[in-house]
Amino acid sequence: MEKIKIGLFGFGVVGQGIYRVIQRAKNAHAEIVRVCVRDLSKPRSVEFGPELLTDNPDDILDNPDIDLIVEVIDNADASYSIVTRALSKGIPVVSGNKAMIARNLPELIDLQRRNNTALLYDASSCGSIPVIRNLEEYYDNDLLLEVKGILNGSSNYILSRVFDHNEPYDAALRRAQELGFAESDPSFDIEGFDSLFKLIIITVHALGVYVKPEDVFTYGISTIHDSDIRYAREKGVKIKLVAQVVKVSDEYFTMFVMPEFVFPSRYIYSVDDEYNGVVIRGECYDRQFMFGKGAGSLPTASSILSDIMARRHDYRYEYKKMSYLDRPAYTTDITLRVYVRYTVSNIPAILPFSHIHEQYISADSNYVIGDIKLSDLIRHRAALSAPDIFLADIPTFFTDRDD
Amino acid sequence: MEKIKIGLFGFGVVGQGIYRVIQRAKNAHAEIVRVCVRDLSKPRSVEFGPELLTDNPDDILDNPDIDLIVEVIDNADASYSIVTRALSKGIPVVSGNKAMIARNLPELIDLQRRNNTALLYDASSCGSIPVIRNLEEYYDNDLLLEVKGILNGSSNYILSRVFDHNEPYDAALRRAQELGFAESDPSFDIEGFDSLFKLIIITVHALGVYVKPEDVFTYGISTIHDSDIRYAREKGVKIKLVAQVVKVSDEYFTMFVMPEFVFPSRYIYSVDDEYNGVVIRGECYDRQFMFGKGAGSLPTASSILSDIMARRHDYRYEYKKMSYLDRPAYTTDITLRVYVRYTVSNIPAILPFSHIHEQYISADSNYVIGDIKLSDLIRHRAALSAPDIFLADIPTFFTDRDD
Repeated sequence: MEKIKIGLFGFGVVGQGIYRVIQRAKNAHAEIVRVCVRDLSKPRSVEFGPELLTDNPDDILDNPDIDLIVEVIDNADASYSIVTRALSKGIPVVSGNKAMIARNLPELIDLQRRNNTALLYDASSCGSIPVIRNLEEYYDNDLLLEVKGILNGSSNYILSRVFDHNEPYDAALRRAQELGFAESDPSFDIEGFDSLFKLIIITVHALGVYVKPEDVFTYGISTIHDSDIRYAREKGVKIKLVAQVVKVSDEYFTMFVMPEFVFPSRYIYSVDDEYNGVVIRGECYDRQFMFGKGAGSLPTASSILSDIMARRHDYRYEYKKMSYLDRPAYTTDITLRVYVRYTVSNIPAILPFSHIHEQYISADSNYVIGDIKLSDLIRHRAALSAPDIFLADIPTFFTDRDD
Repeated sequence: MEKIKIGLFGFGVVGQGIYRVIQRAKNAHAEIVRVCVRDLSKPRSVEFGPELLTDNPDDILDNPDIDLIVEVIDNADASYSIVTRALSKGIPVVSGNKAMIARNLPELIDLQRRNNTALLYDASSCGSIPVIRNLEEYYDNDLLLEVKGILNGSSNYILSRVFDHNEPYDAALRRAQELGFAESDPSFDIEGFDSLFKLIIITVHALGVYVKPEDVFTYGISTIHDSDIRYAREKGVKIKLVAQVVKVSDEYFTMFVMPEFVFPSRYIYSVDDEYNGVVIRGECYDRQFMFGKGAGSLPTASSILSDIMARRHDYRYEYKKMSYLDRPAYTTDITLRVYVRYTVSNIPAILPFSHIHEQYISADSNYVIGDIKLSDLIRHRAALSAPDIFLADIPTFFTDRDD
């Protein structure tokens, strides 16, 4: 069997992980023939021949012997440039860059079609958990109702340290960074954007609809406070950063990324530390739960390897659900029940709650629990980003939103 | 888009479930054009036209308009006859008959190759959990180390009732039958054969090796006794019926179906009631856990629908791992630590334990915990099938066997 010849962009933690995994998986019949890096002199932890590295992208993009490009660089703009150039030349690409993919998916789908080539990116969503592939192939029908989960390992790690180990938030964040779970810019993880980008990609493969990242309400965990944790503990719930896309009727779906009060009966309640967990709910199969390591060098590399192997059989995403005649439309006209904790801001005056269920006022902290439209949360995004506010979803309103 | 024309064999609970699911999933573009049943006059719970049913298999097998045969009949011999006839004629088949498939897989693979057609059977293993497809496509490399799980919903339901609800075993079995979880012949479920057949199929897709069902040690739960449950509770573990295939070295793997003392830290500990849960462990991705409804009319039907959809793209299992040069070989030359409870039989005299860790003797019940070769358990199968004996695996021996 002839080996697949791979040109690799990026030789950091993930890139070197791929190099190792491919050496280990003999039956993969794959070979990395060239690696493009920014800094040739940087020390690497794997051994390789003198001809492997280059700092010129053209050495890969213009090399006719290369069958496949694997792109795992940390910069979304450079990633975009490489991936679009490769696809335009008809070279298939495997990428793990969720930000780049989520922002440019319509164009990337179009490029694949026009150049009759493929872009695979299962590694972009939940690392080693095969979410995209299963949504595309196995849940390839209109029975799917919801995908909901913990998609970001580092924010989940931080919340686990805070909740289960009583660690202060800052210490937990530092620890996540030391362990390599957190991105170099931690706001990507803790403000929910990493989860958001994954959710955008998941929604394309779940429901066949692309929604722009900026149109989705995204709220992170950076303003979480001792009083929020105390409150959650009193109620017997954990706070998790949850991303979800949910069909609310045959015609509409909604989606958002928000901290949630997760009840112990829910599958995602026990998704702790750096793990990811995804619940796929459908009309006939009820709930499927997939759980595993969502990030890290080798889990991500093994997911990239799965995409490389898929190219052996010329696999490509068909985006079949995008051609369904009765695709549901995105709506923010739904009502959520939320907990909002605040100190300085006057939340009850700012947010147009349709109903307030609880209100608590004290010297150092206040909170309100009320029903509010998702569209109103989006409208008041700026106000909600004040550092004295923390917001969490209480999933009691939809009876369907109970996993 | 043209509709896939399906000939369906079997119109019981699962068959009618498929009929319903296909009507519901409009974008599936599939249509059941003919259904072959044994008894035309039997009442059915779905509505259908007068021309749908036939009791003559030839009306489907000889109908040139039919693109695909779906076979969900309850009889392994009849299933074998239909599936082999269809494949020999080059007609692709989707089947859920695990016993038939597990017993005849080498011939069925050969038939697919010779007639350039496909047999898909994801529904045969764990219903709506996409185990086979993921093993075949996503874990399509030699990093896989282990597949272990609770593969039979009805035995798991019974054990859950017994453990969590203090129900007597017989009442729990009756309840499982009333709820439709148990097969009409409950021994299939509770003696471990259903799990065994699934494990045989899983092993072909996990490691590329076919092992005959009769060569695999299989021990069920029918002899479980109050004293076993008491013992497990005292130790803080649950007893679950577990099937596993495990690589014990680069060269060898082992497999068996046995009750296991499951520790609370393990993923499968919380797989209760009629649910199935599967852990896939690999060298780089560590443990992936998949959890869902393993049986029942609609979950099984939705899994069948996934296979029907896959045929739109001419999908077939390639059995790629069967052509690996360095496939591991099956061994029973491994040592397990087991708990054996007995009353009449003289277990310490019958079984050649290499080491006995605990022994307990009392007026009404005795047990021994010792290390023994899997090959010796197989050799003493007949003695172990005595009704006064219950056997369970204690997964402490391999450090690797700890999920």
